[in-house]
Amino acid sequence: MPNIKAIVEYDGTDFCGFQKQPVVPTIQGELERALRTLFRQDVKVIGAGRTDAGVHATGQVISFQAPEAFPLDRICPAMNGRLPLSIRIKDAREVPETFHARYSAKSRTYTYIVLNRSTPTALLARYTWHVTQPLDLEAMRSGGAGLIGRHNFASFGMPEREGGSTIRRVIEFRLGRRKDAVVFAIKADAFLSGMARAIVGTLVEVGQGKRSPEEVAAILAACDRQAAKASAPPRGLFLTGVEY
Amino acid sequence: MPNIKAIVEYDGTDFCGFQKQPVVPTIQGELERALRTLFRQDVKVIGAGRTDAGVHATGQVISFQAPEAFPLDRICPAMNGRLPLSIRIKDAREVPETFHARYSAKSRTYTYIVLNRSTPTALLARYTWHVTQPLDLEAMRSGGAGLIGRHNFASFGMPEREGGSTIRRVIEFRLGRRKDAVVFAIKADAFLSGMARAIVGTLVEVGQGKRSPEEVAAILAACDRQAAKASAPPRGLFLTGVEY
Repeated sequence: MPNIKAIVEYDGTDFCGFQKQPVVPTIQGELERALRTLFRQDVKVIGAGRTDAGVHATGQVISFQAPEAFPLDRICPAMNGRLPLSIRIKDAREVPETFHARYSAKSRTYTYIVLNRSTPTALLARYTWHVTQPLDLEAMRSGGAGLIGRHNFASFGMPEREGGSTIRRVIEFRLGRRKDAVVFAIKADAFLSGMARAIVGTLVEVGQGKRSPEEVAAILAACDRQAAKASAPPRGLFLTGVEY
Repeated sequence: MPNIKAIVEYDGTDFCGFQKQPVVPTIQGELERALRTLFRQDVKVIGAGRTDAGVHATGQVISFQAPEAFPLDRICPAMNGRLPLSIRIKDAREVPETFHARYSAKSRTYTYIVLNRSTPTALLARYTWHVTQPLDLEAMRSGGAGLIGRHNFASFGMPEREGGSTIRRVIEFRLGRRKDAVVFAIKADAFLSGMARAIVGTLVEVGQGKRSPEEVAAILAACDRQAAKASAPPRGLFLTGVEY
């Protein structure tokens, strides 16, 4: 049973998140459906990041046990032929049997794109959060810098299981402007549910002058999910990479 | 009755083209519906370019007679509040009563984006034509150069009314590569129905080596709609500007 690692890109707009659920369309559900028609048996897909409903990915990593030897160079086209056009396998290769897309991952990188201009947009609406007021990037950088390191992020997200740890390590936080786009990149060992969007939502409030950069540290210290009320919409968020 | 000129951006994926039709959703239909709820009476919208089903726009120009004095700076937000998110008014201003979005236009510019790489895409699928074979841009430029000028483009498109003129003037043809994208820009006094997509489809065949650059001139000279069989899909095409 070869162990396969694959890179997946998807437009999350029309899916209820990565994780399989009964009835509603999910990324994992579509991937497992494609594998079932390919191998004529159930194949469990493990994803590195459980993206929320509406969140996109350019670098989601999955692993699965192929039930039979299958020509490796045929896995991408065979799966893409069975998936909706909004989900594409970009690469697939055999990896040692110890590789696990989720547990072997050392960190995940999420990118968030805010379209920051007054002119409305139709073509970028699916892939950005449109914020019309000018943002103060210096203040946002200052607020975000305090999140780097190992902290209790309970104010910014929920653990998957009730009572699970809310300690996470933010390894990198970058913020820049490219033309009309304000782009966040956040790398952490792992993310709580809703964490990337709560960080971005809070920092956009800082950029708008609704909060001071110092308040971000106070919110973090509160360790209370009610402390960070703002949450950026899912459409601007992308899982861009998983590091092993 | 102030005469209003507006710039419209839209994602054409879910519309049956610009021009109003019974039952099916169209850009003009949505614009007139928004104006009807705003002014509580029928307002006819004139568009500079009748984009086909699935074709997008970043710079479509419309004009309409506002039935009453309306604060000009409120027209954009009032219309955007009544339109689907896939259609946005980017600018609206009063123009002399002689201005007509269609008949006053001197030329239109269409941009076509081919994603030219082997890696599949989910996020660019709505807005590009994915061609995996490498394209020979020099051959395509050479083939496209022969289209510049005033010609009978009957091989590349249909007039709106049967028996209408198929003479058009291509003012500019540009072709370039930006990372994985091969970008066409075609400016003409006006376009026949299907003309931009037939030109791109034919030139992509040249880029793939299926046709020689010289064949493009022969197709043009044939003045026969059957001569240019290839047509690029609508999802890569954008009406990017209208010049007055």
